[in-house]
Amino acid sequence: MSQLRLNQLTWREVRQAGERGIALLPIGSQEQHSSHLPMGTDTLLVEAVVDRALDLLAQEASGPDVVRLPALPFGHSPHHLFAAAVSLSAATLGAVLDDVLDSLVTSGHHRIMVVNGHGGNDEIMRLAVKRLALRAEVSVAACSYWTITSGDDDGGRPDVTPGHAGWFETSLMLAARPDLVRRPVPARTPVVPPPLFDQPPYPGLTVERHGEWARVGGSTDDPSGADAARGRALLDDRARGLARAIQAFHAATR
Amino acid sequence: MSQLRLNQLTWREVRQAGERGIALLPIGSQEQHSSHLPMGTDTLLVEAVVDRALDLLAQEASGPDVVRLPALPFGHSPHHLFAAAVSLSAATLGAVLDDVLDSLVTSGHHRIMVVNGHGGNDEIMRLAVKRLALRAEVSVAACSYWTITSGDDDGGRPDVTPGHAGWFETSLMLAARPDLVRRPVPARTPVVPPPLFDQPPYPGLTVERHGEWARVGGSTDDPSGADAARGRALLDDRARGLARAIQAFHAATR
Amino acid sequence: MSQLRLNQLTWREVRQAGERGIALLPIGSQEQHSSHLPMGTDTLLVEAVVDRALDLLAQEASGPDVVRLPALPFGHSPHHLFAAAVSLSAATLGAVLDDVLDSLVTSGHHRIMVVNGHGGNDEIMRLAVKRLALRAEVSVAACSYWTITSGDDDGGRPDVTPGHAGWFETSLMLAARPDLVRRPVPARTPVVPPPLFDQPPYPGLTVERHGEWARVGGSTDDPSGADAARGRALLDDRARGLARAIQAFHAATR
Amino acid sequence: MSQLRLNQLTWREVRQAGERGIALLPIGSQEQHSSHLPMGTDTLLVEAVVDRALDLLAQEASGPDVVRLPALPFGHSPHHLFAAAVSLSAATLGAVLDDVLDSLVTSGHHRIMVVNGHGGNDEIMRLAVKRLALRAEVSVAACSYWTITSGDDDGGRPDVTPGHAGWFETSLMLAARPDLVRRPVPARTPVVPPPLFDQPPYPGLTVERHGEWARVGGSTDDPSGADAARGRALLDDRARGLARAIQAFHAATR
Amino acid sequence: MSQLRLNQLTWREVRQAGERGIALLPIGSQEQHSSHLPMGTDTLLVEAVVDRALDLLAQEASGPDVVRLPALPFGHSPHHLFAAAVSLSAATLGAVLDDVLDSLVTSGHHRIMVVNGHGGNDEIMRLAVKRLALRAEVSVAACSYWTITSGDDDGGRPDVTPGHAGWFETSLMLAARPDLVRRPVPARTPVVPPPLFDQPPYPGLTVERHGEWARVGGSTDDPSGADAARGRALLDDRARGLARAIQAFHAATR
Amino acid sequence: MSQLRLNQLTWREVRQAGERGIALLPIGSQEQHSSHLPMGTDTLLVEAVVDRALDLLAQEASGPDVVRLPALPFGHSPHHLFAAAVSLSAATLGAVLDDVLDSLVTSGHHRIMVVNGHGGNDEIMRLAVKRLALRAEVSVAACSYWTITSGDDDGGRPDVTPGHAGWFETSLMLAARPDLVRRPVPARTPVVPPPLFDQPPYPGLTVERHGEWARVGGSTDDPSGADAARGRALLDDRARGLARAIQAFHAATR
Repeated sequence: MSQLRLNQLTWREVRQAGERGIALLPIGSQEQHSSHLPMGTDTLLVEAVVDRALDLLAQEASGPDVVRLPALPFGHSPHHLFAAAVSLSAATLGAVLDDVLDSLVTSGHHRIMVVNGHGGNDEIMRLAVKRLALRAEVSVAACSYWTITSGDDDGGRPDVTPGHAGWFETSLMLAARPDLVRRPVPARTPVVPPPLFDQPPYPGLTVERHGEWARVGGSTDDPSGADAARGRALLDDRARGLARAIQAFHAATR
Repeated sequence: MSQLRLNQLTWREVRQAGERGIALLPIGSQEQHSSHLPMGTDTLLVEAVVDRALDLLAQEASGPDVVRLPALPFGHSPHHLFAAAVSLSAATLGAVLDDVLDSLVTSGHHRIMVVNGHGGNDEIMRLAVKRLALRAEVSVAACSYWTITSGDDDGGRPDVTPGHAGWFETSLMLAARPDLVRRPVPARTPVVPPPLFDQPPYPGLTVERHGEWARVGGSTDDPSGADAARGRALLDDRARGLARAIQAFHAATR
Repeated sequence: MSQLRLNQLTWREVRQAGERGIALLPIGSQEQHSSHLPMGTDTLLVEAVVDRALDLLAQEASGPDVVRLPALPFGHSPHHLFAAAVSLSAATLGAVLDDVLDSLVTSGHHRIMVVNGHGGNDEIMRLAVKRLALRAEVSVAACSYWTITSGDDDGGRPDVTPGHAGWFETSLMLAARPDLVRRPVPARTPVVPPPLFDQPPYPGLTVERHGEWARVGGSTDDPSGADAARGRALLDDRARGLARAIQAFHAATR
Repeated sequence: MSQLRLNQLTWREVRQAGERGIALLPIGSQEQHSSHLPMGTDTLLVEAVVDRALDLLAQEASGPDVVRLPALPFGHSPHHLFAAAVSLSAATLGAVLDDVLDSLVTSGHHRIMVVNGHGGNDEIMRLAVKRLALRAEVSVAACSYWTITSGDDDGGRPDVTPGHAGWFETSLMLAARPDLVRRPVPARTPVVPPPLFDQPPYPGLTVERHGEWARVGGSTDDPSGADAARGRALLDDRARGLARAIQAFHAATR
Repeated sequence: MSQLRLNQLTWREVRQAGERGIALLPIGSQEQHSSHLPMGTDTLLVEAVVDRALDLLAQEASGPDVVRLPALPFGHSPHHLFAAAVSLSAATLGAVLDDVLDSLVTSGHHRIMVVNGHGGNDEIMRLAVKRLALRAEVSVAACSYWTITSGDDDGGRPDVTPGHAGWFETSLMLAARPDLVRRPVPARTPVVPPPLFDQPPYPGLTVERHGEWARVGGSTDDPSGADAARGRALLDDRARGLARAIQAFHAATR
Repeated sequence: MSQLRLNQLTWREVRQAGERGIALLPIGSQEQHSSHLPMGTDTLLVEAVVDRALDLLAQEASGPDVVRLPALPFGHSPHHLFAAAVSLSAATLGAVLDDVLDSLVTSGHHRIMVVNGHGGNDEIMRLAVKRLALRAEVSVAACSYWTITSGDDDGGRPDVTPGHAGWFETSLMLAARPDLVRRPVPARTPVVPPPLFDQPPYPGLTVERHGEWARVGGSTDDPSGADAARGRALLDDRARGLARAIQAFHAATR
């Protein structure tokens, strides 16, 4: 298969790839990630996973051409504006996704995948892909990168994955962009009670309480044990998972 | 605790209950449920679970006053319009939830819970409760009734729960409103390949394909083995689970 | 004719009824009704009138099949939020009506009637039915229940009909749901000057003054003379009127 | 009192008049008025009534200063686009009214009146003035010119008032702008059945049927008996009525 | 050619003119113009230029029929609300233009021109005409009147054209509507630093600073040297320019 | 001064820089650029100019800290969808800019600059910065990169600057990203008549004709004479111009 970057293609190449290929849109965020991780963490990580997955696919004999779009660097992060964020409202992000997806269809694409790097984008992304499949004759897939695993043991800690600015994200950043992680990574004292959005009072219940993110200091768990080696393993696992998911989506909708 | 119905209260009683109580809004749908279940299945079931849970709570010595709102009978069901549905767009349903939640806050409520009966409402409900907690000083909870279990063995089949118009919903309807289930419940021949929205080609991936609901005939799994006794057990289990979830939300936000 | 409830029909029955029948949507409100009537008064009354009218029609040899939808329990009541209400904005209520009406058309209905229980919904309902008739090949009717009379003497007092939480609504509630009327019904001292929205300074003029509903205490006229017997007569009159209106709409658009 | 035109005032004069005066906005339409009346009939007539009323008020010793805005020449006329119209959607017209009314409040006005010349604007105007009174500390009035009579005998024919492009409007145009009425005024053969929007099948029922305006040829009744003298009497009556309504609004909200 | 006024035409005449003619919509504003010019200055001036241009065209043997619409008297003036204005938001003005332009197309027009009298409308007008040409098979032109010159020497001062309530607009008003210019025209002391929106710190840069219009007193340059004779020359020049522009648009899109 | 990248900063660093620095947002497009330039040309070029300008500023002793945001890779390109584009509607792009600008203000920034790489974004950007300055206490600047020159002779051809996919953009791409320019650059036969959007029939007139971009083949002028050396000079000139513009904005709003 070929790995193509939409921004580097001419329009005829885009049209040609659209006939059989898969268009892939990464979406991220710019938002506070505690005092040790950069604002762009989610965008950097989803791009890291996507690019590694595409590298893996490029080594395979068969598979779809993938046209990777530039990542949308901004997501839905109103809950981080108490500190700092560049946040699109849910309506705006939904409109951006509608417009981007419609453009791809108008430009000849029939199969599209959105890969997400930020929890706050999740529902908006799901609604957008459902809307698209109702109004256009397409197949469209969506996932958040941390949920797509290879199925092998990745040495991870499911209890703090993905969390926010905690063990998981810090480990991945130590692997992907160590230069952007401020050291020493500060320890986080447990907050009592823990944030209701992260640890709801009953299984299956979503609870949102006003001011909760500020109360707990902007992160969900202690990042101080984060580890570059384990971060590399986790990152590789997601890349392998995503490569397989792309192949599976290709096979199911070919 | 008291179980109160908002539509039967005077406005002073609403204000009074708002100080310490929990307002509870059930939301459902009107949409095709194959040839044997009625359009209002989701609304009927979420109301059945909510009312049983409130009956359980009413027997307890302590606990919150719960002000139950009339159910919103219409949900987001554009994928069922190929057959028949009364569907609100995602934007409309989001606006309804915003307006209802804001009204409750303006009328003095600080704690609100939304209980959902239809899968298609899920993301919209989650976005609405997140938005509310950002703009108002409230605690707000949300769940879909089938995900709130007691934790005990309920004799269920997780592989087909909730599904759509299949074993789970048919069993519950045989328990809750047997008069509305057309007999004999028809057997459903497996559709090959199964619908991508229900059985994605890779774990963690959401896939939507145009025309998929019509292709598979409007249901996800075979309802013919549905059983009233197991339906009663499942329904009781959700009611017990929801009663406990309300108590837990009360305790966490008191 | 048959009286059918959409929420109890299967989708094929909905489609079948849509060919020749009339879909009927009641809309109401949840809003303060002074200290003696419940929040849901408007919804309860419009449902009482609709259901009695449908009972009358069911006894007739000829006439249309009527598919009654679940009532929309929430309306446009921003002027009652000073006390308590669950209010949809005009834009939201308009969107709900658009979506519901479009869904009915998509599901095969050609003739639709909206019956309203709350004055504040009136303009929004009219705009919605006009919009629908422009974009779809349908006939659509709308009315507020208190304006549809049999034409016979109903013993009513036109000067205080419908009013709000006054003689008319209290009499009807004493007939329809006496258990929900708090006794004794309190006398209302005349407010001077009377509310401009109810008694404009010149005939034909609409006047809205900020804070007027709060200034006059949330009602328009003295409910203390309300009477169950006269309420029954008024209710029966509206039910007979609505039954005839449905027959007339049927005959005109058949 | 003074009669002032907002477009001719400096901003300081606008602010000064806003303290005690009444701002008055005429709204009209541009839409087909059969083959003998011009597109601007509604705007021309509402301006004629308003200007005559203001002339009458200018002769009185006491009364409010009235700041007359330029008329909004476009209204909500989608039902006339089958022939020709310049129509704003209901949402657009509502937004225009919101913006104009908010601007007046921001510029210092506390009392505002909207005078309407086109039936299709009615509900939108009413909703706009209600919204304004909820969000701003103002008194705001609204009317359609044909409903504001002096109360004296005006020689009118209530059965065809206002109608559309029929006896009433043609008579008024023969009085106000005879140069714009094409002669001979054509007779109109009765359409059978008459349009449901004008003659509903049951009193109190609103009925809209797709294509009805085109079916009946764009007018409601026979204009051929229209008469300039009676038009003058009708016009004068509305002017007197409006002058009195302005005085009454002034007295009630002073 | 003929000069036609849409509000005076019957609908059949509008349709007929639409086949070959050009529809022309003037748009203006109501906003503070310092202490010596009226609120309606922009609308009055654009109408003066348009009507003179149409008079010039009417004297020519050949050329298009022009159907002049009533001017939209309100524009986008939020920056003048610190003093007084009747302002439409950018979204509302865009919606008005969309609706008016769509109506013209639906009523049979293929060629449309918008002539603007207010700087704040410029971007909104450009976006509207671009949108229209994408969704309808039309040719559509737009300009602000001060930018359309004859090309001859008009004795103007480009450094203060158009400015706001300064030398240019005051001169034109002294020519077009001297009765509405308050005398003596007050001298304006230079404001230091000059307003950033009028004199940006670097060529090609747009700079907007909060509160700038209030800081500089609502005008851009000294109007005290304004002159009726030069105003007449400038006005005639724009009228000649616009007449030629209409001819050129006609020739290019015939 | 420092050159900072928002996506690499922690939130505390963003807040700190916001106090005195300038936030800079590049916006671009993904759209057809004829057969020899890539879809991302506008984004690549605006980023090239911005990054060179920031490099120049970094060498200076004094000046503002500039916090560069990730470029928005998508713009308003509906006119290029006939071939291929990823286009946001004007409403969506306006909402994105509103949200991004509001986020920056909420996160502590007082001075913001938007630098644009695509003509179709221009009006939307201007409206957005005007809106922001009205609702927030900020100074905000905007420009399109090709209009910001050093004032020195840059060897350019103003008649074809910027054009679309012609001499100017091709020369710049040969300088900035020669690897992405397909060779040989094809010659473009003159299209007769030339596109009305690029060469209006009268100076100062904007004319948009349906289907014009497709008719002229998607570009405005002949790129075959494009030259890398002259492209470097043009690029350096814009970079110097932008660096000076940033300094001037800093000085004027400090």
